[in-house]
Amino acid sequence: MANPQPSKRKALERTEGGGPAIILVKPQLGENIGMAARAMMNCALTDLRLVRPRGKWPNAKAISASVGAHPLLEKAGIFDSTEEAIADLQRVAATTARLRDMAKDVIDARGWATEARQGVAAGEKWGVLFGGERAGLHNDDLALADTLLTIPTNPAFSSLNLAQTVLLISYEWRMAGDIEVPKETRRKGFGARLATQEELVGFYEHLEGELEAGGFLRVAEKRPRMIRNIRNIFNRARLNEQEVRTLRGVIVALAEKKWRRPENS
Amino acid sequence: MANPQPSKRKALERTEGGGPAIILVKPQLGENIGMAARAMMNCALTDLRLVRPRGKWPNAKAISASVGAHPLLEKAGIFDSTEEAIADLQRVAATTARLRDMAKDVIDARGWATEARQGVAAGEKWGVLFGGERAGLHNDDLALADTLLTIPTNPAFSSLNLAQTVLLISYEWRMAGDIEVPKETRRKGFGARLATQEELVGFYEHLEGELEAGGFLRVAEKRPRMIRNIRNIFNRARLNEQEVRTLRGVIVALAEKKWRRPENS
Repeated sequence: MANPQPSKRKALERTEGGGPAIILVKPQLGENIGMAARAMMNCALTDLRLVRPRGKWPNAKAISASVGAHPLLEKAGIFDSTEEAIADLQRVAATTARLRDMAKDVIDARGWATEARQGVAAGEKWGVLFGGERAGLHNDDLALADTLLTIPTNPAFSSLNLAQTVLLISYEWRMAGDIEVPKETRRKGFGARLATQEELVGFYEHLEGELEAGGFLRVAEKRPRMIRNIRNIFNRARLNEQEVRTLRGVIVALAEKKWRRPENS
Repeated sequence: MANPQPSKRKALERTEGGGPAIILVKPQLGENIGMAARAMMNCALTDLRLVRPRGKWPNAKAISASVGAHPLLEKAGIFDSTEEAIADLQRVAATTARLRDMAKDVIDARGWATEARQGVAAGEKWGVLFGGERAGLHNDDLALADTLLTIPTNPAFSSLNLAQTVLLISYEWRMAGDIEVPKETRRKGFGARLATQEELVGFYEHLEGELEAGGFLRVAEKRPRMIRNIRNIFNRARLNEQEVRTLRGVIVALAEKKWRRPENS
């Protein structure tokens, strides 16, 4: 931990962004702390706080499980009580699978993320409490939160792993932000430009000419529809110029066997 | 594994829902397979398929890490190849962190989940490919997919754990079921159903056989890439069964000139 790799350190600096604090209350397994740190870094969150982690700290298993997110573990705040861990925060949500009898706002992770983005943008400090692996949060910890945060899992199998709960909350935070997301389906090519209609029509006519020669379009009344269907297939593929050339090579290879090796060669 | 607890078995039955298949290609660690199974159950997905998992199967570490999701591991399909694992599917997405130079649709997990809900509701069979821990998916596996699926993680720290990737995709699937999905134009394919992977591979092999005969694939070192490029074109078109038949007729017409009229007729 003394000398984190410069590239990881740099990743941490590049993701410092004032997002919500992730507070693990009495976590038991170093592996889960490490995986939670990794999940936070995946989503560009960096403020990790631990309340009385079990065993020795720093913890070798946590560092190993963080797979490179150890600078975040290194700077994690360690606290004796939940009260101390959240002292500087203005809004605190508590994750819980069971919605206990508490007079408190309940919100799902997606709804929370939208509100948290607005709050943080307005300068507020937000945080989320996560309970330990065995028993979750104590009622005294829940009482410190202003909101209960739930993840709508399968009611027949609802128990989430600690690190996975951290991941889902962090992911929703990230998705609620102004990040570059492919809003709609967009195709990635080889850097090649899309084919022009002229190139496409040239290809269609080449294909149709060979189909004519091959007798495929022999039934006159089916011919226009057959041609439309075939053109539709290739139009849907949104071919690039390189692909049009490839397909014309395919036609030549099939129809003319231009490159065929001599028999018995 | 022989006698899963009745309550867990019941949970599995209660979550059988015909959602997308989760296909792990050459997963290396039993722990990750177990955690992936747990994440699927958390989100009410039950169709787990494994392509050549490393080491012995069933795997004690996987069962332990599944924390009660072992009935799902017990009924997981085990396959020798990715092609076999996806043979019955009609739409296949591939998860990848790096958007490689492939001419293919790219969509984020949230957008994919919305489309998958519509497709599955219309009776289609969907699945998602996940690569192994070390190297991710091979280009040959990516070429089998019609869509690349990305999770918009922090660019400075983008590497997600395998089980966490499964969780995020499964979670988006679940969340997409709870919200009102805007009715969007779905592709109409003459009322025909989408082609299965088996039908597609049959077509590819037919085409490639004829291209071989025609000498198109004569340069050995270019051959795998050439085949991938051609498969990518047709995968992108999301062919229906009728169109696959049409295209096979096209190959026959071009290569064999089966229906050619007699000369001078």
